[in-house]
Amino acid sequence: MNHLYEKTIKSNSIYSGKIIDLQVDEVELPNGKTSKREIIKHPGAVAILPITTEGKLILVRQFRKALEKTIIEIPAGKLDEGEEPADCAKRELAEETGYVTDNLDFLLSFYTSPGFADELIYMYVATGLTAGEVSRDEDEFLDVIEVTLEEAEEMVRDERIHDAKTAYAIQYMRLMKYLDK
Amino acid sequence: MNHLYEKTIKSNSIYSGKIIDLQVDEVELPNGKTSKREIIKHPGAVAILPITTEGKLILVRQFRKALEKTIIEIPAGKLDEGEEPADCAKRELAEETGYVTDNLDFLLSFYTSPGFADELIYMYVATGLTAGEVSRDEDEFLDVIEVTLEEAEEMVRDERIHDAKTAYAIQYMRLMKYLDK
Repeated sequence: MNHLYEKTIKSNSIYSGKIIDLQVDEVELPNGKTSKREIIKHPGAVAILPITTEGKLILVRQFRKALEKTIIEIPAGKLDEGEEPADCAKRELAEETGYVTDNLDFLLSFYTSPGFADELIYMYVATGLTAGEVSRDEDEFLDVIEVTLEEAEEMVRDERIHDAKTAYAIQYMRLMKYLDK
Repeated sequence: MNHLYEKTIKSNSIYSGKIIDLQVDEVELPNGKTSKREIIKHPGAVAILPITTEGKLILVRQFRKALEKTIIEIPAGKLDEGEEPADCAKRELAEETGYVTDNLDFLLSFYTSPGFADELIYMYVATGLTAGEVSRDEDEFLDVIEVTLEEAEEMVRDERIHDAKTAYAIQYMRLMKYLDK
């Protein structure tokens, strides 16, 4: 047995929503004592780093209610039930930005907040983009912008870009420049 | 007025917990229609990239109930009420790993899941480490490990490291190597 394992004694479902569910688990700790774990269940998501033939990034500006402000991110969206991440990436890129491509390379996946949520983001790099039609969710409003890597880095510094997946993607592009790929 | 702004019509508090709160807001969208936003409130957190004098990383292995598995991360922890992020970083590093230092450099902050949560992580690089005493939260169990950058990158590839803040930190170290800093 894993010496760090926490055994579930009881799991209480608190809320079941449109995007997230909340459950509170009573667990037995490795030392035999009990504790509570608050857990958000999320269907998972994709994020796409779309790079134009001129080497620019396509970003989206949107209002995030959880933050009560507008921030700039790489295109992203949650997985539909049973949807393959690569299909979701292609769909979200097209819906949010209008760009279509068959050149999607999987980069990595990561949990965003393992302390309390199971959200897993699959990240892709999209190249060979051609302009198509935008078709967003009915409750989705955003601006599409195109920036250089240097402009994106400036946006990270002044916190117009202020989220983990986008900061990772921009740092990745910078690293690739040094690796001359 | 911001053309992407979503006005709150009503905010319903669903759950108030130890680490997170859940509220569901009814909002007026930019087109005048209404929608619901599920929002997790979190006190914010810090993450620390501790680098030894030999250039190795200090990481922690812990069981994450939300994932039902053990993963390896950089040391991290949530802010106490009114606590300065830099003080929290020093405290969490000492509590989790036993290492103490006054050399903490702020790297950047980012939201982990802006689509549904307001958790903001402040990231620091810690150097000049000296071994002290470990003193963890009573419900906190973890192993401390020391790895090279190459080993950490291997752990990202095989998903033993599988979270955004740690992937960012390791990519940052790789980038610094190319920049020869």
